[in-house]
Amino acid sequence: MNIINRSEIVKILRDLNLTRLIEEGFVSYSNKNAIVPPIGELHFKKPPGDVHIKYGYIIGNSYYVIKIASGFWENHKIGLPNGQGMMLIFCQNTGQPKALLLDDAHLTDIRTAIAGQICAKLFTNKINSIGVIGTGLQARLQVKYLSQITDCRKVFVWGRNKKKMKLYKDDMANVGFEVKCTALIEEVALKCNFIITTTASDKPLLMKNQILKGTHINAIGSDALGKRELGPGLIHKADLVITDSLEQCQHRGEISCAIKDGNFSIHQVKELGQVLSGKQKGRESDEQITIADLTGVAVQDIQIATAVYKKYLEV
Amino acid sequence: MNIINRSEIVKILRDLNLTRLIEEGFVSYSNKNAIVPPIGELHFKKPPGDVHIKYGYIIGNSYYVIKIASGFWENHKIGLPNGQGMMLIFCQNTGQPKALLLDDAHLTDIRTAIAGQICAKLFTNKINSIGVIGTGLQARLQVKYLSQITDCRKVFVWGRNKKKMKLYKDDMANVGFEVKCTALIEEVALKCNFIITTTASDKPLLMKNQILKGTHINAIGSDALGKRELGPGLIHKADLVITDSLEQCQHRGEISCAIKDGNFSIHQVKELGQVLSGKQKGRESDEQITIADLTGVAVQDIQIATAVYKKYLEV
Repeated sequence: MNIINRSEIVKILRDLNLTRLIEEGFVSYSNKNAIVPPIGELHFKKPPGDVHIKYGYIIGNSYYVIKIASGFWENHKIGLPNGQGMMLIFCQNTGQPKALLLDDAHLTDIRTAIAGQICAKLFTNKINSIGVIGTGLQARLQVKYLSQITDCRKVFVWGRNKKKMKLYKDDMANVGFEVKCTALIEEVALKCNFIITTTASDKPLLMKNQILKGTHINAIGSDALGKRELGPGLIHKADLVITDSLEQCQHRGEISCAIKDGNFSIHQVKELGQVLSGKQKGRESDEQITIADLTGVAVQDIQIATAVYKKYLEV
Repeated sequence: MNIINRSEIVKILRDLNLTRLIEEGFVSYSNKNAIVPPIGELHFKKPPGDVHIKYGYIIGNSYYVIKIASGFWENHKIGLPNGQGMMLIFCQNTGQPKALLLDDAHLTDIRTAIAGQICAKLFTNKINSIGVIGTGLQARLQVKYLSQITDCRKVFVWGRNKKKMKLYKDDMANVGFEVKCTALIEEVALKCNFIITTTASDKPLLMKNQILKGTHINAIGSDALGKRELGPGLIHKADLVITDSLEQCQHRGEISCAIKDGNFSIHQVKELGQVLSGKQKGRESDEQITIADLTGVAVQDIQIATAVYKKYLEV
């Protein structure tokens, strides 16, 4: 069994073009060619923490993948990262363990950013400004990964903490983005026809009446029960609602909140892989409001882990 | 993160007294002091294989444990063991990975044998002869672990394959047991007041009318959907039916078969931890027929993995 640590993984990632692989993963998933059981969960109270086990395989591929990821929300108080993560790779023909990727959740961060990039490419109009709600790691990665699909380098960012906004602005300037900070979420909505929500908020931030025609939203932050970034009626108002997993979005994320609010049904939602394969339509006019609600599917983990391991074997 | 391989684990096990720890695990589980979510499963068709993810923790302990075990039933054709397994240990306070136990399923074999030993000690009359259905690894381990709780060294074994029976007889002679082989299951039932079933059979082997008064049965082999060793009505006939997990036995193992057969309800079953803690009665007379249906609970994995890791840290 190969133990591959984070620094090796970061090196390997430089030589990989993952977008196509993640797209293929979504298509396999929507075509029912991927086996992805419900997420395994463990919850802790003192101190508070959550563990997620995501696992599965694409039929006919060489490996199956099990990802173990955790968030322990008070870790930073003792100088540890809140998030932890690793992926395990096993042979589909024999069950033999092949590799342990000690990526410290880095691969999850990357595959999440790539899913955002895929949706941005598919569903946005020509981007005039990029709106970002939140100032954390995904607020950075989601924007960085846009470089490959848009020339737009203007960002409006909103965050609760002024210092963190300033830090965000400086960090993003270093990778070529011109960031304006704002204390008003409505300014983000007014100025940007593409908005990315990336907070761990448990209360709605972006409201229905703030969103202009032609806007696309990538809702990234709400990936578990109790998290919510979009206000009541916003999902209802959208002309197109996309999810990475029809199964999963009924139980977590923005769509599950909209269903609970009432007058919204899972039948109004399209799955990303279906749009990627051309079986469902995406945006149909410049006027449409579109929302992609991404809670993260094991098929992304399967694809990125497999790609890293195959590259590792080549080197 | 510590990587601990099988040979190190085998060495560490020599210095551990696990019975008490596994008993405490069952008690914690029955007292709802252990968090054990439903087993995660992956199934493969070509070649056929199953993966089980068992995980959880005891509230207030230091670690949580995730076990990944698989059976790929054609591995032996290419010279590999059918079963694979590993356990991962994480900190309950931070989520940090602490150890990977590359035990190749050895710890599962041991904790399964110890659960059998615990039930034998609790529920058998004075053992006159040990009956064993099956000639595999658990047929050996279950009997070996009886040395500590009975003076009886007489075994009647039944298996489909004569060569394997002979091999079993020789192996068990080396550890002090006098084994008689028989081609008739009814002979096992007639001669032995304690019977252990350890096959992967999908059809009943031990029948209701064969079982004499005063017999205790440890049903070990049937741990997944589709497996069954006890004939229709045998569970119904028993005066006492025990399970390691009331939750789990409704979906897998002999009790789930009895419930499907009809006229048997989960309310007629007692949980092992409740008997161990004295909250429920065990055998009440020498005449009673008692059956323990063990499908294996993550709390056993939690206890054995934690014990091995703590000992590893001491050394």
